[in-house]
Amino acid sequence: MNKPPPTSEFTLINWFRQRERSRTSHSTKQGIGDDCAILGVTPGCDLLVTTDMLMDGRHFRLDQDGPEAVGYKAMGVNLSDIAAMAGVPRAGVVAVALPRLDAIAVAQGVYNGMRSLAEQFQVELVGGDTNAWDGPLVINVTLVGETTSLGPVRRSGARAGDIILVTGALGGSLASGRHLRPEPRIAEALALHAAAPIHAMIDISDGLSSDLGHILEESGVGAVVDAESIPIHPDCQAMSRQDGVPALDHAVNDGEDFELCLVVSAENAARLLASTPSPAKIYSIGAITDAPGLRLKLPDGRIVTVGPGGFDHLRATK
Amino acid sequence: MNKPPPTSEFTLINWFRQRERSRTSHSTKQGIGDDCAILGVTPGCDLLVTTDMLMDGRHFRLDQDGPEAVGYKAMGVNLSDIAAMAGVPRAGVVAVALPRLDAIAVAQGVYNGMRSLAEQFQVELVGGDTNAWDGPLVINVTLVGETTSLGPVRRSGARAGDIILVTGALGGSLASGRHLRPEPRIAEALALHAAAPIHAMIDISDGLSSDLGHILEESGVGAVVDAESIPIHPDCQAMSRQDGVPALDHAVNDGEDFELCLVVSAENAARLLASTPSPAKIYSIGAITDAPGLRLKLPDGRIVTVGPGGFDHLRATK
Repeated sequence: MNKPPPTSEFTLINWFRQRERSRTSHSTKQGIGDDCAILGVTPGCDLLVTTDMLMDGRHFRLDQDGPEAVGYKAMGVNLSDIAAMAGVPRAGVVAVALPRLDAIAVAQGVYNGMRSLAEQFQVELVGGDTNAWDGPLVINVTLVGETTSLGPVRRSGARAGDIILVTGALGGSLASGRHLRPEPRIAEALALHAAAPIHAMIDISDGLSSDLGHILEESGVGAVVDAESIPIHPDCQAMSRQDGVPALDHAVNDGEDFELCLVVSAENAARLLASTPSPAKIYSIGAITDAPGLRLKLPDGRIVTVGPGGFDHLRATK
Repeated sequence: MNKPPPTSEFTLINWFRQRERSRTSHSTKQGIGDDCAILGVTPGCDLLVTTDMLMDGRHFRLDQDGPEAVGYKAMGVNLSDIAAMAGVPRAGVVAVALPRLDAIAVAQGVYNGMRSLAEQFQVELVGGDTNAWDGPLVINVTLVGETTSLGPVRRSGARAGDIILVTGALGGSLASGRHLRPEPRIAEALALHAAAPIHAMIDISDGLSSDLGHILEESGVGAVVDAESIPIHPDCQAMSRQDGVPALDHAVNDGEDFELCLVVSAENAARLLASTPSPAKIYSIGAITDAPGLRLKLPDGRIVTVGPGGFDHLRATK
């Protein structure tokens, strides 16, 4: 049996605190229970900081998805940002605006949803801010991570001739609720970066076209992506049956896959594809070019430019 | 003339980014514009992390107070948490849920409100998350700071015989809108901690009785506070005229003063009171005791216990 549920905000904070206290490590000098958390930093490491806010009705539907899914996603999307820098997550602080009527049950559900991922990736929950209000659930997670001795990977290091890889199938994450269950590619990023220097990386949250677009913009380069090489997630077919939009368009444009898009030298790409370090999976989808812009090579051989609005099959066939 | 206002979320991020890029320091290796910010850490320092979420209708009224006041307060309350640890603020990440109809104007106002405090305390805005929705404005600021060579000050170090000090007048902050304009006591905390080891400290956000109560609980001690020594803010009289509650009750119970409550040895208290290091002001209000609980010595000489619900003059006179 669990202990009886807490009955006020202060008891709730103690409930979290008791659960976290036994987990805090040597380098966490103060967890929940003071004005700030106090963390030791590994000498020689730089700090990574990322924050994401999720709102009911926008990033999740509390009534349909339940609070555990919300907590999981809020932790997962932030972990994915740490993965995108090839960093190691360390600690998190969590702020919530809880719907007043069901505040305690929602808070406990959110906490339980976060915990599974936090345990998996050894993230310590070291502080937070608990509020209740008459509005919908809002949750904000801020994660602090560290770089490894290999340093961080930015968006800005792609060079002409480099190869573009992705770590998994893309598109349609809304169809199956997969957008609620990101699998942060922390271990994958670290293994790949250790095997071959990653020149540029981003996690696919807004869609391949947008996020690869950020790499191209920050690196001052362009790319040609081969449509037939893109690993199209089976969810895209389901989406396509519903909305009539071709599966390829979903794979190129849909967001919230939380796979990584990374860029390495052609030599290293060949090496990684021949022998991919566990637990990563990689798919080669195209190459970086000097010529700016994102171009997509369609199965019929035509090359179309993908603008900021994403790829539109109908527009491409005109 | 200012540049024309941005017209989409991506342009808005660029607007912030341009304003922040010129300000980033040597130790900020990546500000806005990647999946995480990258910060160098001063060797030998520990990290301080704090987060606070402010919601429209709960912590501010956007229609009455305006977005600049919201941005100022969101930054100020987090700076106050860094002050409470005797830390030095370094960098902040900001997430907002903007009301869709007026998103850009609100975002710019919030940003401008944060900037003045961020400049004053040399906080770099290194990242964030910008969302729009149909709900009310929600803003979350997470600050990262560093300890000094003197180390952080926790809530837990108060000892019997120590003296309790506060850095300013208390109570009634809602009457004048003072709760929107916290003056983070960063410089004060650093000056005091350098002049004499601070045993325990907290910022007064929930009210003196609650926040001193946290110090007592974490330190395993009690306190006697002398009602006549408490610096009662003039706002308390204004509140008292409105609600009939005695000014002393407001000074003891009201929140959001964002002054510091600190505990030092009796010897050091005498020294600090005789010669207070600039820019701090301090008021001695009582002493730490072995006997647990918070007791208030009233002007008529009676000593009453202040419970978790705060001090109630009416209850005390029964």
